[in-house]
Amino acid sequence: MDGWSVEVIDQRRLPHDFSIVQLTNVEEAAVAIKDMVVRGAPLIGATAAYGMALAMRSDASDATLEDAHSMLLETRPTAVNLRWALETMREVLLPLPREERLVTAYSQAARICDEDVEINRSLGEHGLKILQEIAARKKPGEPVNVLTHCNAGWIATVDWGTALAPIYLAHDSGLPVHVWVDETRPRNQGASLTAWELANHGVPHTLIVDNAGGHLMQHGMVDVCIVGTDRTTSCGDVCNKIGTYLKALAAKDNGVPFYVALPSSTIDWSLRDGLKEIPIEQRDAREVTHVRGLNAEGELAEVAITEATTKASNYGFDVTPARLVTGLITECGVCEASEAGLKKLFNK
Amino acid sequence: MDGWSVEVIDQRRLPHDFSIVQLTNVEEAAVAIKDMVVRGAPLIGATAAYGMALAMRSDASDATLEDAHSMLLETRPTAVNLRWALETMREVLLPLPREERLVTAYSQAARICDEDVEINRSLGEHGLKILQEIAARKKPGEPVNVLTHCNAGWIATVDWGTALAPIYLAHDSGLPVHVWVDETRPRNQGASLTAWELANHGVPHTLIVDNAGGHLMQHGMVDVCIVGTDRTTSCGDVCNKIGTYLKALAAKDNGVPFYVALPSSTIDWSLRDGLKEIPIEQRDAREVTHVRGLNAEGELAEVAITEATTKASNYGFDVTPARLVTGLITECGVCEASEAGLKKLFNK
Repeated sequence: MDGWSVEVIDQRRLPHDFSIVQLTNVEEAAVAIKDMVVRGAPLIGATAAYGMALAMRSDASDATLEDAHSMLLETRPTAVNLRWALETMREVLLPLPREERLVTAYSQAARICDEDVEINRSLGEHGLKILQEIAARKKPGEPVNVLTHCNAGWIATVDWGTALAPIYLAHDSGLPVHVWVDETRPRNQGASLTAWELANHGVPHTLIVDNAGGHLMQHGMVDVCIVGTDRTTSCGDVCNKIGTYLKALAAKDNGVPFYVALPSSTIDWSLRDGLKEIPIEQRDAREVTHVRGLNAEGELAEVAITEATTKASNYGFDVTPARLVTGLITECGVCEASEAGLKKLFNK
Repeated sequence: MDGWSVEVIDQRRLPHDFSIVQLTNVEEAAVAIKDMVVRGAPLIGATAAYGMALAMRSDASDATLEDAHSMLLETRPTAVNLRWALETMREVLLPLPREERLVTAYSQAARICDEDVEINRSLGEHGLKILQEIAARKKPGEPVNVLTHCNAGWIATVDWGTALAPIYLAHDSGLPVHVWVDETRPRNQGASLTAWELANHGVPHTLIVDNAGGHLMQHGMVDVCIVGTDRTTSCGDVCNKIGTYLKALAAKDNGVPFYVALPSSTIDWSLRDGLKEIPIEQRDAREVTHVRGLNAEGELAEVAITEATTKASNYGFDVTPARLVTGLITECGVCEASEAGLKKLFNK
């Protein structure tokens, strides 16, 4: 706690080990995003904002500002909050005289974080109403079964989370919820982060493989799906962790409502067709061929699940077309996943 | 090679270790099926048939025959080849005088195995025509991209496999094929068995997580899906490894043909509605919370991907409704996945 370095939880070591990493310059911030020490669209944005502040600490010149912007922007191509946070920082800092940039950078990054907390709490309240309506149609005391994919909880944001915010608020208000947690291969953010978050908050949950959700929906065991998103287009197409599209198809096929929770900073107003226009990040094949966990000795270790020669491909995200999305839960309310729905809600 | 014990490959150790397990009595055969030393509907049937032969070796009485039948039948509830093979053995053995049962049991089990090889080769040839038709519509030399889920290769049968049989025949005939291999959580039969089989046969392939297939189909990277099945109803509903349904939904949504390859012994003529009538096996949660592979020291080891307290559920199969299936590839030809299609092909 030196007052200037940035402390983040190393999410790669959860749930087995809670360790804090200190970021002391922009390069370290970029590596933390790229290597997924931090992940989750809102948290990536917040970390990038602080990365800009760290850059200003070494040198508050225009060149350093632009270099930091480029370096951080390149770390993850799909999430749009990253770009949004970096643009916000640049717009605020560039007009300022150099000597004011450092202090403003820290205060602006802090503002982005504070706003994220408020936004998520607010979208959580809008999502809570959806869960309350579902609960009202069930027998008293019967839990609302929510399926979620990947992690869009507080650890993906600054606090509360997006998809998990309504769940936390429901649980805290005494509404019984049970969450089906997709493990979310290849990086298992569901198994390692969502299950860990829910356990810490006392929310009943059951881990499942990504293959299982369709079967559960066929058998009436899921009342609603709620996921996060890394980028949503102006027409309501939703880019999120690979596999989200398959769950949306199963929800549609079984009449299960499928909601996406997002801060409005996740909307990319410049795009329409998510399938054609959103760049899909490809990551290291090793994330597929190797699995990390705790070995029998209680140490973090990796095992290879394939022969060493096996080739793998690793697309990080997919796009769920708006036609499969029941609604978008935002800090301003819930809207239809369509151009009309988004325009109306955001007065565009 | 003592002339009477039954040797099987321990599939739990593949692809890292090729080791043979000797089954010397019916109890060992039952455990081998239950613990998935052997798996794959046709191979389960063949192993169960030999399990009956091993039982006859200890005592050829009616009581032992019935006990062996019950014990083996209980090992896996979903696959119907198991029941079919056991019924076949009982029908052949029960009318015989005791002194003839042992020899006949071995010869009948061998016949089941020989027939399996013939059946798979035959269904492979019917499936090959489908791949040839797809290839004819592509640019010369461009590979046909096949997506498969789980393992329905030679190691799931006695030889050739079901879903992989057309692929092997295509490759051997010089038709270029490339296979997208779903890793198939929780047991990773795709990563450990299908990828290993295809590599040994020289068939180009790429491993993907189960979440990825929808994205690939959205982007035109899959020409056809072919999977196996553990039980198919008289109306064409297909029960197969959990997650198959999600791929069938994505195939339908993207106009990708979705075929299921099966020996007719996999058809359960007594059932109509697969969703309501097929029992879905639930397996140990540890298959979800722990992953087995090769550690840095080159030893087979398990890692926990969750906290020790995380609860998981593990449904082994799901049912793909006939409406999502383009066709059934059988040893008698290809038919529509419907009551009419099946009745016509099998003269029922």
